[in-house]
Amino acid sequence: MDQENLSVVLHAKGDLRLENRPVPEPGPNEVLLQMHSVGICGSDVHYWQFGRIGDFVLKKPMVLGHEAAGRVVKVGSAVTHLKAGDRVAIEPGVPREMDEFFKNGRYNLSPTIFFCATPPDDGNLCRYYKHNANFCYKLPDNVTFEEGALIEPLSVGIHACCRAGVTLGSTVLICGAGPIGLVSLLVAKAMGASQVIITDLSAERLAMAKELGADLQLTVMTEDGAQQLAKKVQDMLGAQPQITIECTGAESCIQTAIYATRSGGVVVLVGLGAVMATVPLVNAAVREVDIRGVFRYCNTWPMAIAMLASGKVNVKPLVTHRFPLEQAVQAFETTRQGLGIKVMLKCDKNDQNP
Amino acid sequence: MDQENLSVVLHAKGDLRLENRPVPEPGPNEVLLQMHSVGICGSDVHYWQFGRIGDFVLKKPMVLGHEAAGRVVKVGSAVTHLKAGDRVAIEPGVPREMDEFFKNGRYNLSPTIFFCATPPDDGNLCRYYKHNANFCYKLPDNVTFEEGALIEPLSVGIHACCRAGVTLGSTVLICGAGPIGLVSLLVAKAMGASQVIITDLSAERLAMAKELGADLQLTVMTEDGAQQLAKKVQDMLGAQPQITIECTGAESCIQTAIYATRSGGVVVLVGLGAVMATVPLVNAAVREVDIRGVFRYCNTWPMAIAMLASGKVNVKPLVTHRFPLEQAVQAFETTRQGLGIKVMLKCDKNDQNP
Amino acid sequence: MDQENLSVVLHAKGDLRLENRPVPEPGPNEVLLQMHSVGICGSDVHYWQFGRIGDFVLKKPMVLGHEAAGRVVKVGSAVTHLKAGDRVAIEPGVPREMDEFFKNGRYNLSPTIFFCATPPDDGNLCRYYKHNANFCYKLPDNVTFEEGALIEPLSVGIHACCRAGVTLGSTVLICGAGPIGLVSLLVAKAMGASQVIITDLSAERLAMAKELGADLQLTVMTEDGAQQLAKKVQDMLGAQPQITIECTGAESCIQTAIYATRSGGVVVLVGLGAVMATVPLVNAAVREVDIRGVFRYCNTWPMAIAMLASGKVNVKPLVTHRFPLEQAVQAFETTRQGLGIKVMLKCDKNDQNP
Amino acid sequence: MDQENLSVVLHAKGDLRLENRPVPEPGPNEVLLQMHSVGICGSDVHYWQFGRIGDFVLKKPMVLGHEAAGRVVKVGSAVTHLKAGDRVAIEPGVPREMDEFFKNGRYNLSPTIFFCATPPDDGNLCRYYKHNANFCYKLPDNVTFEEGALIEPLSVGIHACCRAGVTLGSTVLICGAGPIGLVSLLVAKAMGASQVIITDLSAERLAMAKELGADLQLTVMTEDGAQQLAKKVQDMLGAQPQITIECTGAESCIQTAIYATRSGGVVVLVGLGAVMATVPLVNAAVREVDIRGVFRYCNTWPMAIAMLASGKVNVKPLVTHRFPLEQAVQAFETTRQGLGIKVMLKCDKNDQNP
Repeated sequence: MDQENLSVVLHAKGDLRLENRPVPEPGPNEVLLQMHSVGICGSDVHYWQFGRIGDFVLKKPMVLGHEAAGRVVKVGSAVTHLKAGDRVAIEPGVPREMDEFFKNGRYNLSPTIFFCATPPDDGNLCRYYKHNANFCYKLPDNVTFEEGALIEPLSVGIHACCRAGVTLGSTVLICGAGPIGLVSLLVAKAMGASQVIITDLSAERLAMAKELGADLQLTVMTEDGAQQLAKKVQDMLGAQPQITIECTGAESCIQTAIYATRSGGVVVLVGLGAVMATVPLVNAAVREVDIRGVFRYCNTWPMAIAMLASGKVNVKPLVTHRFPLEQAVQAFETTRQGLGIKVMLKCDKNDQNP
Repeated sequence: MDQENLSVVLHAKGDLRLENRPVPEPGPNEVLLQMHSVGICGSDVHYWQFGRIGDFVLKKPMVLGHEAAGRVVKVGSAVTHLKAGDRVAIEPGVPREMDEFFKNGRYNLSPTIFFCATPPDDGNLCRYYKHNANFCYKLPDNVTFEEGALIEPLSVGIHACCRAGVTLGSTVLICGAGPIGLVSLLVAKAMGASQVIITDLSAERLAMAKELGADLQLTVMTEDGAQQLAKKVQDMLGAQPQITIECTGAESCIQTAIYATRSGGVVVLVGLGAVMATVPLVNAAVREVDIRGVFRYCNTWPMAIAMLASGKVNVKPLVTHRFPLEQAVQAFETTRQGLGIKVMLKCDKNDQNP
Repeated sequence: MDQENLSVVLHAKGDLRLENRPVPEPGPNEVLLQMHSVGICGSDVHYWQFGRIGDFVLKKPMVLGHEAAGRVVKVGSAVTHLKAGDRVAIEPGVPREMDEFFKNGRYNLSPTIFFCATPPDDGNLCRYYKHNANFCYKLPDNVTFEEGALIEPLSVGIHACCRAGVTLGSTVLICGAGPIGLVSLLVAKAMGASQVIITDLSAERLAMAKELGADLQLTVMTEDGAQQLAKKVQDMLGAQPQITIECTGAESCIQTAIYATRSGGVVVLVGLGAVMATVPLVNAAVREVDIRGVFRYCNTWPMAIAMLASGKVNVKPLVTHRFPLEQAVQAFETTRQGLGIKVMLKCDKNDQNP
Repeated sequence: MDQENLSVVLHAKGDLRLENRPVPEPGPNEVLLQMHSVGICGSDVHYWQFGRIGDFVLKKPMVLGHEAAGRVVKVGSAVTHLKAGDRVAIEPGVPREMDEFFKNGRYNLSPTIFFCATPPDDGNLCRYYKHNANFCYKLPDNVTFEEGALIEPLSVGIHACCRAGVTLGSTVLICGAGPIGLVSLLVAKAMGASQVIITDLSAERLAMAKELGADLQLTVMTEDGAQQLAKKVQDMLGAQPQITIECTGAESCIQTAIYATRSGGVVVLVGLGAVMATVPLVNAAVREVDIRGVFRYCNTWPMAIAMLASGKVNVKPLVTHRFPLEQAVQAFETTRQGLGIKVMLKCDKNDQNP
């Protein structure tokens, strides 16, 4: 094993460095992983640019990265389901306490959860990383490392669609055709949605959404009113969508989401915007349109692996850029500029394949 | 049968009249009812004062009243489950179409539903009234007419608590100790809530809530901030409530409801306020606090009758005033002034008992 | 309009006749339909062979057929959503009463429901047939009449998969590769099942299942024990299936279904066998494997049409035989012999297309 | 602290001994408890009489007891939510692995779970016992130790009623008025059931059920047929119950449960009988009566404590006999003879209060 552990460390707002850190030693329930592919998330860039997200504030240097897959190189003494050589996808959130949320199967809501690259917890954009073995999931041979890394954003889509109750014949509006809008699209179609309409300001993004299976695309004009847009959605679908998955966080889009959704339907809030939002709550209330948020995900890795292994969901087209770990800064800059969809960092010097 | 049919008719904003109308003839699926007890709802008073509620605008004279019970005096040719003499409670909403909402068991959301005393549909504050027999429910001998009339407001509480998912050991915050807050309290306790805390500006209302079973009461000061109130609720309960039932419609209370509710919990919006509301949506979203509205109710009458017949819910203390039908204007004035809890109009000249 | 109404009438056990009946006149809420395509169901053949199914006994001549689509030729006075010329699929069950089941959205359980070709209610294997317009669903231009007729068996699969809770990444065992097993397969895959394993005695049926998308096929030997088969299923899948859809009704298959299903999972009983069955209930109970039956379906036509219109489900390969209405007896004989999958009768002399 | 640790140890079928064992040392996540009150469960007696329950076979000496409450005397290094002196109720099942069941909130189904007094895991019928601190729940001052011990059987009732979906106005049939039938009764009423009818062979048990709140009691005659009994239940209730909780495990009672339950309802299997049972599955299936088992419970302690603290459930009358720990054999004999309802062993020499 290499003794160097090149890592992408955020020291302070705007101060991103590549530096060597010690190779960690796995505890009894942990595995040591040689990282292979790690995607860059909008939140990684946000920490780099602003040093914080909401109440999470960077106070000491932190390794970035949480969309990751790697290979087991060492297993802790109590680990039985993994062995050296296994290829795994990493679920970045690991509950620290057996609290009521964990016991009830909603461990993502546990307030003390460990989460990669959320201050003060280190992420896995590095050569070697240790993680709780129970949150490392073995990849079948026909699932690549990059697909494994993409399970993280895919999980956001899965959790959103599960919370929305997408089922056979659902009609779905997705606001925003960025990476999260696109994975939500993939998942909604895989769960049986008959029609998905997606909106965005960018025609280029909508073109990609179309390629990935969106049935209808609607280019949003900044001057469109929320009710006007809701009407357009209804006209294009022939009826109001039963479900809206809001991936932008923009107040006007949340308003559109509420107006657009059919009575008795569901709006899922995935995108996060300003702390306070002005929205037509009475309109939602009297039509029993439920408003549900999502916080990350839970219990999605097994589902996602099953879908990837069976070929029911194809996430490969989402990777538009690849950089070796040594060029991490350039990779972050690419993401910051909004180029392509997903930028992948290749952490294994000897294997830069997907 | 009397040939006069004294009715409380709203002719225009502010113009409430007692006048005789013809006794209606029931159709094949209808029953003719001799009305016994009809409660006055805040919405009745609102139509009287403003001539409209939201998009529902009074355009022609309309009989008020929709919290009602009476006695069957004539049955339509196709009616088999009721007979003359039966005492019944009236569900005021009757779907007109077998649309997707009705077929799915959520007929309250049907856009073409008939609803007593919602323009242009007449209510039942009168001597004789005909109604779809399928929405008249026979009262057991040990349930009074007034209890039958109170099933309507009780149903709002039932629907709210069902939508909220109140269950064994739930901790519940109820915002507002008016009639709807109080019935929600009764229902929440009957469904197994272990602790209900209720808030109001009025100490008098809170005292009534205490008598009806509220475990904790919190008097709201107008200068209290939403987060501050949420903190007080948590301190009093010893933990955040899992469920909040918001019965005021006030923006600040909706904010309190969101801040106060435990992660993974539910806020139910029962009170209706301004069309647009500014609320901490991100706070709700990242803690997966669901926001659910209620529109009236569906499938609640059988439940309510079962509860009243078994003595598990006692609504009798809610009736604080009674007037004969002839004094309807005085009764409306009493309700307008916010005196007591529920004002009951007695429509049967020969039987003014509860 | 033709004045003849050639109809397939079952007079008694074994006595199937083609005879002319009057063209019916639609009531206010009904439409008159010129029938186009009607599939033959196993239950039609069962009535023909035995004169009864369970408690439903043929006591007077009855028109057979309930998997049907046709064209509107006349609309009742109160019908607004359909007009002459519309192509529609027919939901054969129409509730007669607004009872608790209908109000709760489970109208299939209403004990007084009308149902085509269930004694004493006539079916629609004829030239002209009238039906409640609310249970006729307009077909989009890209959905054929035969697809419309196949919505009925497809609905059994939809209802079974919905009751089973099939969702993203579900692993599913289907016992029996007859028509119902096959539609359940199509639906399970469309709802996101990652792996479906299907069993049957017939290698030919399993080959068809493979063509339609089954991931794994298991040929059952009559000497296999239930626990042995359950073990084979687990070995082939690599884990126990979360869901089993039992489509045979055979006692040994129900036993296999219970043993095979993962703890916390669901067995759905679709096939009906002997009145009493001997099953390992304790095994199901202590592993919290729920056992749920299905009775026909409710609220499935809109879903099914959405899926067919969007091309997400392809039922066309299910039709293996077609006969003109005049050759109904030959068509029934073909079904009785178990040839092919679905036999379609073509009721429109001037249009025998799919 | 005493250095003796008197314990009730089952050495083999029929060989129950009182012997001193070492006082255990708590690990980092454990607490050491001085046991106060431990109830005797039917399963304890069954192990004593038969040396096994199903696949669980006694192979080495095992301490009995799993209905328990005690006082913390020592806390492990990592424990933060408990301290010496705290009075706690013990949840006897502690998952050993973070498997799919635990992550999904159904840890009771985890195949490797530790469970007190299930071979080979020791129970807590002793003076000193150590347990995972996360599965010890602090008792409020107004909840006694005995109430704390009774949370275990109460939890069976809670889990059964939750799985059954008991809610406001539910009508419930409970088969069997033994301890589990009685706790199910208490819970069903607390969750809003309007009418509970309970059956048993013993008039004495039914009298106790009446005292505890059963609305109706039906004495079963051994010659009664299952359908006949179902009819009696319907006649007494005035309608079929929506929910049946089967607590006997007898085949004839399971049959009654199915026949008796309303279409669309639920039968919950709590009692365990013979491995194979002959039941009218078709009757259940075509009426969509779901059959659901329960295996112990999960996530019930917080609910139960909330209910006991608020006084909504009164379990105190269940304790009919008390013995000091030294008289354990006599206490077991009392339970074996079916005397009273619940026999409580008092493990603290200095405090034998409830």
